Amino acid sequence: MSTTAKKKVNLLLIGLSKRGKALLDLLLEMDDVNVAAVCDVYEDRLQNAVQAVEKVYGKKPAASTDYRALLDVPGLDAVFTPSSWTSHVQVCLDAMNAGLYAATEVGGATSVQQCWDLVRTSEKTGKPCMLMENCCYGQEELTILNMVKLGLFGELVHAEGGYRHDLRREICMGHVDRHYRLDNYLHRNGDVYPTHDVGPIAKYLNINRGNRMLSLVSVASKSVGNEAWVKSHLQQYPQLEEINNRDFAMGDVVVTTIKCAMGETITLFHDTSLPRPYSRGNLLQGSKGIWMEDKHSISIEGITPVNEKSWNPHSWYDLNKFYKKYEHPLWKKFRSSGVKGGHGGMDFLVLRAYLEAVRDQTQTPIDVYDTAAWMSLTALSEESVAMGGHPVAIPDFTDGRWINREPIVEGTYCLNKICKPGRKL
Amino acid sequence: MSTTAKKKVNLLLIGLSKRGKALLDLLLEMDDVNVAAVCDVYEDRLQNAVQAVEKVYGKKPAASTDYRALLDVPGLDAVFTPSSWTSHVQVCLDAMNAGLYAATEVGGATSVQQCWDLVRTSEKTGKPCMLMENCCYGQEELTILNMVKLGLFGELVHAEGGYRHDLRREICMGHVDRHYRLDNYLHRNGDVYPTHDVGPIAKYLNINRGNRMLSLVSVASKSVGNEAWVKSHLQQYPQLEEINNRDFAMGDVVVTTIKCAMGETITLFHDTSLPRPYSRGNLLQGSKGIWMEDKHSISIEGITPVNEKSWNPHSWYDLNKFYKKYEHPLWKKFRSSGVKGGHGGMDFLVLRAYLEAVRDQTQTPIDVYDTAAWMSLTALSEESVAMGGHPVAIPDFTDGRWINREPIVEGTYCLNKICKPGRKL
Repeated sequence: MSTTAKKKVNLLLIGLSKRGKALLDLLLEMDDVNVAAVCDVYEDRLQNAVQAVEKVYGKKPAASTDYRALLDVPGLDAVFTPSSWTSHVQVCLDAMNAGLYAATEVGGATSVQQCWDLVRTSEKTGKPCMLMENCCYGQEELTILNMVKLGLFGELVHAEGGYRHDLRREICMGHVDRHYRLDNYLHRNGDVYPTHDVGPIAKYLNINRGNRMLSLVSVASKSVGNEAWVKSHLQQYPQLEEINNRDFAMGDVVVTTIKCAMGETITLFHDTSLPRPYSRGNLLQGSKGIWMEDKHSISIEGITPVNEKSWNPHSWYDLNKFYKKYEHPLWKKFRSSGVKGGHGGMDFLVLRAYLEAVRDQTQTPIDVYDTAAWMSLTALSEESVAMGGHPVAIPDFTDGRWINREPIVEGTYCLNKICKPGRKL
Repeated sequence: MSTTAKKKVNLLLIGLSKRGKALLDLLLEMDDVNVAAVCDVYEDRLQNAVQAVEKVYGKKPAASTDYRALLDVPGLDAVFTPSSWTSHVQVCLDAMNAGLYAATEVGGATSVQQCWDLVRTSEKTGKPCMLMENCCYGQEELTILNMVKLGLFGELVHAEGGYRHDLRREICMGHVDRHYRLDNYLHRNGDVYPTHDVGPIAKYLNINRGNRMLSLVSVASKSVGNEAWVKSHLQQYPQLEEINNRDFAMGDVVVTTIKCAMGETITLFHDTSLPRPYSRGNLLQGSKGIWMEDKHSISIEGITPVNEKSWNPHSWYDLNKFYKKYEHPLWKKFRSSGVKGGHGGMDFLVLRAYLEAVRDQTQTPIDVYDTAAWMSLTALSEESVAMGGHPVAIPDFTDGRWINREPIVEGTYCLNKICKPGRKL
């Protein structure tokens, strides 16, 4: 390999569905990345990706329908797997054991043991394992993180979030479109997708660095949304007959409330099987103020007006008015250089966060303890739902080190502390 | 007594604080009501009310600091007690045992047994006992009830609500202003005020009439809001020194999730000790659509546009645009005759609902089973919080009759079924 090639991050991309292909296209635009190898269990998706790489690089990447055959591609640095939920953990374990950085698309674990396996393997191999939670890099979420770290909300007390998205089409058409959600929804009941909401919240609350999640309770509603969607679309899509009259195990709405060691509560809503506008349902409350995503607004003592004599002393103020002053420096720079990539730029930023950690051989801003804690919520939520809302303990994946673990405050993509003013990004 | 006087509802009003006095003023405007007797444990409040009655009626009402001395005032029909939370149940029991209709201002129970006592006493005496949940008669809530009963939301699946109101001043100044909240917040931890949210929701979900609440889990955050408020107002109000450095038992945010027999989930937030704009946080989701109070908006298939091909098929539409078509007939009539009374008219409507039931000697639209079920949530929430979020069973106060109890569909103020079109109100 030439010296120039050496500087690039050599990546194995596993999972080339619609989502994986979009991420591949984004990666192919980065001149410090070499997509060295690609994998999908479906041959057509694999060939589609091979052609896309060849079109840009002028040569084909290594390719296989079995990722294990690709872990020893020469020069490989890292793996990223936007594959189906239930494949994420094994891929990451195999990657770390092969001496590679591991990154997984979001999704929850099916057992707590899986999360321990990730932690122990990362500790043993010294390789980071990053859950690619793009919402941690959302413009609104990063601005709020910045405001939290500046102390504007005072002492944090309560947070809410959700994955509130009408996915009935994606779910019910799963067998037609080779999408993994359908089988999960037919068989599992719990918050199977908690990290878009809990990821940013965990960063606000310093989870695993001075705080941790202690326990949760989950309660699931009945399941009617998908069954009804199938019935009403049978004529349009006769292929749905296969799942017509099937009972879905997944409750349409699963509500999870988490208690943290420092006393905060977090309420999460998994809500993907009923008609409703999209929302991540974020809300954050501290001793000095509140942010509510659905109103795209804040009300914070010291920043927004208060009328103590009124029965309703506080009003909402549009967050847009505060971006100029409080926008996170990472986003400020990103905006000025032109926002790139899907999901409003979040995808680009989370990829860069991972790739630059690989390049610099540093810890990832979402580390294996974050990954394990966030993913474990799915398995624990299923347990609690199965036991009628019984509280379940959330393991301390840091083995007690959360008490004294310091926030990582260096690095462009750090999510633990506000970047120092004037620091070059 | 003259025949004319006989037609009036003779009422004993117990509790003459700021809230009680406002209700008294409203009652004194009604020409079919006779405030025959008034009571407050504080002599100054009592005399203030006596004078107010005398000013309007030209004669003094019966009056005492002990309501038990007033239960045998001649001709008395009914009691209404906007007194402190922990006095409500005993007043209602004594009223029913004296052969009177009983009505209580909102608030929760301190034990489940209290709720059974209300039920058994009502059954034994044949006297109704109505929780005066004014929010059941809110314009927005009644419109949604109308839309629910018309089937527009499809099959209901999930509801949320809350009492989200910065009450730090009222709470912390409790000993100064003789307000009951302070002692409750210093000593209790749970959702002490669930009925503004759960009342309307229970009516949407046909609780106690074809459905019931089965179990709940409650989790409480830490308590920091009131302690901080006291500290920051010590200079302004030196009387606060008495509670400076006291620990408040009440978590700033208490999250409760209820599971219903027909499979629905209800999540309630008690959130009164942090700075935030007022909200009852209502949200209702069914197989066809959603209502969200904080956006004052709906999105309902068949009514609002859907773009099935979009990643986000639904949008929010301002509820105001739908009032004309779907407003509840009771509110339509009320508005055309001129909205009266506090809290946007709700107070007037709930009073009329009670008083007309007394006048007509009919069942109250919120009956003793509603009252018991809703009030029990407070005691049960405290139990669950005390046990770390353990699920607790919600009793079936109907002794199994909920399965076949029919909705009350008659009466101007019925909350169980949409009034028949064209029916005279």
